[in-house]
Amino acid sequence: MGDKKTLGILGGMGPMATVQFYRNVVAHTLAARDSDHINTIITSRADIPDRTDFILGKSGDSPLPKMTADAKMLADAGADVIAIPCNTARYFQPELEACVRVPVLDIVRETANHVMQRGFSRAAILGTEGTIKIGAYRRVLDSLGVFCVEPDADTQSLVTSVIYDYVKAGLAGGEAIFEEIARRMFDRGCDCLILGCTELPLVSTADSRIVDSLEVLAYRSIVMCGGTPTGFDKEFLSAYEK
Amino acid sequence: MGDKKTLGILGGMGPMATVQFYRNVVAHTLAARDSDHINTIITSRADIPDRTDFILGKSGDSPLPKMTADAKMLADAGADVIAIPCNTARYFQPELEACVRVPVLDIVRETANHVMQRGFSRAAILGTEGTIKIGAYRRVLDSLGVFCVEPDADTQSLVTSVIYDYVKAGLAGGEAIFEEIARRMFDRGCDCLILGCTELPLVSTADSRIVDSLEVLAYRSIVMCGGTPTGFDKEFLSAYEK
Repeated sequence: MGDKKTLGILGGMGPMATVQFYRNVVAHTLAARDSDHINTIITSRADIPDRTDFILGKSGDSPLPKMTADAKMLADAGADVIAIPCNTARYFQPELEACVRVPVLDIVRETANHVMQRGFSRAAILGTEGTIKIGAYRRVLDSLGVFCVEPDADTQSLVTSVIYDYVKAGLAGGEAIFEEIARRMFDRGCDCLILGCTELPLVSTADSRIVDSLEVLAYRSIVMCGGTPTGFDKEFLSAYEK
Repeated sequence: MGDKKTLGILGGMGPMATVQFYRNVVAHTLAARDSDHINTIITSRADIPDRTDFILGKSGDSPLPKMTADAKMLADAGADVIAIPCNTARYFQPELEACVRVPVLDIVRETANHVMQRGFSRAAILGTEGTIKIGAYRRVLDSLGVFCVEPDADTQSLVTSVIYDYVKAGLAGGEAIFEEIARRMFDRGCDCLILGCTELPLVSTADSRIVDSLEVLAYRSIVMCGGTPTGFDKEFLSAYEK
C-alpha cells in the first residue's frame, strides 16, 4: 500500500466518458477488497466550455481556465498523477502540465505509443473535428513511424454526429453509424482504428483492431498509481511486454 | 444554469458502488449537451477502513477521520450538497453533518421516506451486518409507520457473502444468490425489498417492489442540484408526486 499513488481524474468532458473511464479504472484493478483499489479524486465540471468549439473558433470561450483550476484543485487535494479522459483537451496539454507539479498523463502519446508497440502500421484516427484539426494524433503517430489515416469530410460528419447527436445527447442508435464508419476506415486499408474520442467507446464494438484511448489511459493510470491491472486482453497487454 | 449546485460525492465505499452511483446521476440527468449535467466532485478513497468491521467491533480502525477529511475537502472544493453512496457509513451521519456547513443527504432517511410514500407497509431490508446492527432502517421505517423485516441469520450470511465475496471481490455469480435472498424475503410477506447496501444493485434484478437506495440517492441528488431527472420509472416517481 505504501507505494500507491492517488489518481486525479480531470473529467466532465463529457460526464458519461468520465463515468466510463472511472469504471474502467475500478473494473481493471485487481481487488479482493475495497482497499486494493486506487485512491481516486474526480472533478466532473459540466460547464467546462466545449473544447472543439473553441479550437475551431466557433466560440471565444476557452475551456482552459476551468481546466487549470480543476487540475490545481486535484493536486491540492492530494492527486499524485492526473488523467484527463478527453482527447480534444489534449490541445491544452502543455498548459495543464505547467500548472501543476504532478505528472499529467498524455492520452494521445500513450495511445499512439500503444498502437506502435502493437505493431500496427496504418492507423485510422476517429475523433472530434477539434482533435482532427489540431493533428495531435497525426504528428505523434508520424514521429513513431505509424501512418495516420484521417476520415474524409463525409465520414468525419458521421463521427461528429455519433459524438454530439448520440452519445452526448443520450440518444440510442449510434452503434449502427459507428459500424459504418469503422467499415469505411478498414476499407481504406487501415489495420487499426483508434477511438480518439472518449465518447466513442460507448458505441464501439469489440474488435482486436480497435484501440480505445480510454482503455489505454485506464491501464496507464492503474500502473502509474501502483494498482495491479486485470482483465485486459492478450492483444492489449502485448503492447507492454517488450 | 444559475440555480445549479455542485454535487460532492463522498465515495470509495466501495469503489464500484461509487461508479454505479455516479453513472446513475449522469444517466438520469436530462441533458442534450455536457453543460446540462451537474457539476460533480468525487472522492473515492479506497483505504477508508471497513465500516462494518468497525461497527461490529472487529476492528478499532475508525473510518470517520478519513470520511470527515473527504467531506471537508469536497466542501472546500465547492460542493454545495454531499451525497454518500454507502448505507453503512450512515452510522456516522451526525458527525459528517457536523463537520461541514453544506447539507449531507441522508441515504437511509431518503430511502425510507421513498418506501413510505410509495405506500409499502412491510419492507425487507438487505444490507451489511453493520447496517442491520445499527438498526438505522428499522428505526426510521418504524417512525414512518412501515414495518421493517430483517433477514434471519442464515439469510444474512448470504447477503454478506454477496456483498463481500462477490461484488467487492469482483466475482461473477452473485445474481443467483440474490434471487434466493429476494425469494425468501418475499415469502415472509414483504411487499417491498430495500437494497440498503450500495453493492446490491450490481447483482439485483428489475422488480417494481425492489427499492434501490442508490437510485433514490441519485434522484434526490439531481433534484437538489437543480438538474432535471429523467429515465426513472412511473412507480419510482410516484413517491414524489404527493
